[in-house]
Amino acid sequence: MSNMQNMRCVVLGAGGFLGTNLCRRLVSEVASLRAFGRRQSFPEALRGIEWMPGDFADPTSIAAAISGCDTVFHLVNATTPASANIDKLADLQANVASTLRMLEACREEGVKRVIFVSSGGTIYGVPQEVPTPETAPTSPITAYGISKLSIEKYLGLFEYLHGLEYRALRVANPFGPYQLALKNQGVVAAFMRQSVADHPIQLWGDGTSVRDYIYVDDVVDALCMASTHQGPSRIFNIGSGEGRSLLQIIRAIEVESGKALTVHVSPSRSVDIPKSILDTRLAHEELGWSPKVGFEAGIHRTWRWILSQEGCGEI
Amino acid sequence: MSNMQNMRCVVLGAGGFLGTNLCRRLVSEVASLRAFGRRQSFPEALRGIEWMPGDFADPTSIAAAISGCDTVFHLVNATTPASANIDKLADLQANVASTLRMLEACREEGVKRVIFVSSGGTIYGVPQEVPTPETAPTSPITAYGISKLSIEKYLGLFEYLHGLEYRALRVANPFGPYQLALKNQGVVAAFMRQSVADHPIQLWGDGTSVRDYIYVDDVVDALCMASTHQGPSRIFNIGSGEGRSLLQIIRAIEVESGKALTVHVSPSRSVDIPKSILDTRLAHEELGWSPKVGFEAGIHRTWRWILSQEGCGEI
Repeated sequence: MSNMQNMRCVVLGAGGFLGTNLCRRLVSEVASLRAFGRRQSFPEALRGIEWMPGDFADPTSIAAAISGCDTVFHLVNATTPASANIDKLADLQANVASTLRMLEACREEGVKRVIFVSSGGTIYGVPQEVPTPETAPTSPITAYGISKLSIEKYLGLFEYLHGLEYRALRVANPFGPYQLALKNQGVVAAFMRQSVADHPIQLWGDGTSVRDYIYVDDVVDALCMASTHQGPSRIFNIGSGEGRSLLQIIRAIEVESGKALTVHVSPSRSVDIPKSILDTRLAHEELGWSPKVGFEAGIHRTWRWILSQEGCGEI
Repeated sequence: MSNMQNMRCVVLGAGGFLGTNLCRRLVSEVASLRAFGRRQSFPEALRGIEWMPGDFADPTSIAAAISGCDTVFHLVNATTPASANIDKLADLQANVASTLRMLEACREEGVKRVIFVSSGGTIYGVPQEVPTPETAPTSPITAYGISKLSIEKYLGLFEYLHGLEYRALRVANPFGPYQLALKNQGVVAAFMRQSVADHPIQLWGDGTSVRDYIYVDDVVDALCMASTHQGPSRIFNIGSGEGRSLLQIIRAIEVESGKALTVHVSPSRSVDIPKSILDTRLAHEELGWSPKVGFEAGIHRTWRWILSQEGCGEI
């Protein structure tokens, strides 16, 4: 069994939501840690961690970021599900082509394993089976999901041809501290911030669309377990296995905050899937992973963090 | 039920093996036909057909090729399974990025349907189930196969988002007239030419690797049927459903030609899969397609064509 204590790690996309949380965990568990990204959303959260600024699309920066590392966490999202569909070619270039260059750099630098954050919410498209297992058909209705799927396939190819190990986690809808309310992502953070500011929230559709919300610490657990995993599987769904509607999210935030939210409704978007819940039995059985933070506990922790951030500048 | 007689068609990649055969069939069946490609391997075979020379990677050429057409046959292979693995990024750009540009052009030009030739031999990787159905896992061991799969996914996305219809045929190993013996592809044509020239043939591996060989006229049948198909499925395996080893191919050619082949053996390549046979029941049931030309009859026709070409210049 591999051991995290000897790992020399780099986190690509370290300045974002998952990246910030992952780096904060890794820094005390691995031999060395480098954080790479375009910018830090929360610089104070990464204090004391080696920060290397750079663009994922720039091969020279990526080679420098990977140099000397044996374990690469690939958390880069150059687009969002909505933006990717507007310019599918730009999405392909920014995500898939850049990842291919990064994987070639991994070969050259002798990296041992890449752990990739894939997308449990977009890779299956409109699921025929809910909860959806890893073996379900993959018919993404966003270019974002297609890019994630293509990257999984290239990871498989690099392991087959070149012995570069990989694990891919198809993560559901993570929420928690350090989530930005930008870019149409992260409804929990977005709704909480609006609640604090007493602003109305924007709802696409009638609020009945169901997602699988998972607290970020549990996702970080899964990333750590994937970094040392030795079993036969490569791709794991990571989610709570439970579905919650947007209306339930709103209700939970209202209960936590003690005040009602004002809701503005817009027509639903074509990239929205009515119901997405992941079947996470494979991760339980083979990775030994299971979520430890219940939904209400996660909401409580996130709310406390949101309150602690008030007045701290750009969010 | 749609009708081919009213179709205004363009064949992209018309100068190659499948393209030449398809154009020769379509010219008498559709309202208008344009043949687009970099070069014609057999110019005399396309005599009387509108030929538009151009590069698939050039958006201006592609827009001109598609202009005025309602049906696009996409037969372009900018790489081969072996070459694609050497430069995976170049394969991605030449095949996937160029196809994305082409699909945008199809939207702008109001194209109704795209029929895409995918790859039955590479898209599944090393199959867990043989014969392999369309629902089998897709784990390509070549960048070529990943590109084919990505293009299928983008076709699904364009239909979902923009109403651009598509059908994708995962074609096994086609053989027949107008097949080139270049680029490590088309063992039937290659072995037959070596037989005519009394040259030894080059075998990778011990000759036991099994493929699903399908006569080109049957593939053309399937392409025509896919152009008017109205059922629910989008992706069809197209093959004989029968497996034959390289040694059986060699034996069949020896029987047809009446002389022995000299065989030189090289180590097998990492892109070679031991056994690939397609389950084609979906095409039978939903497309109404079935192969009409038996293997020996196909070998006989191909051999007659090879003999007729002797001394006709570049092959």
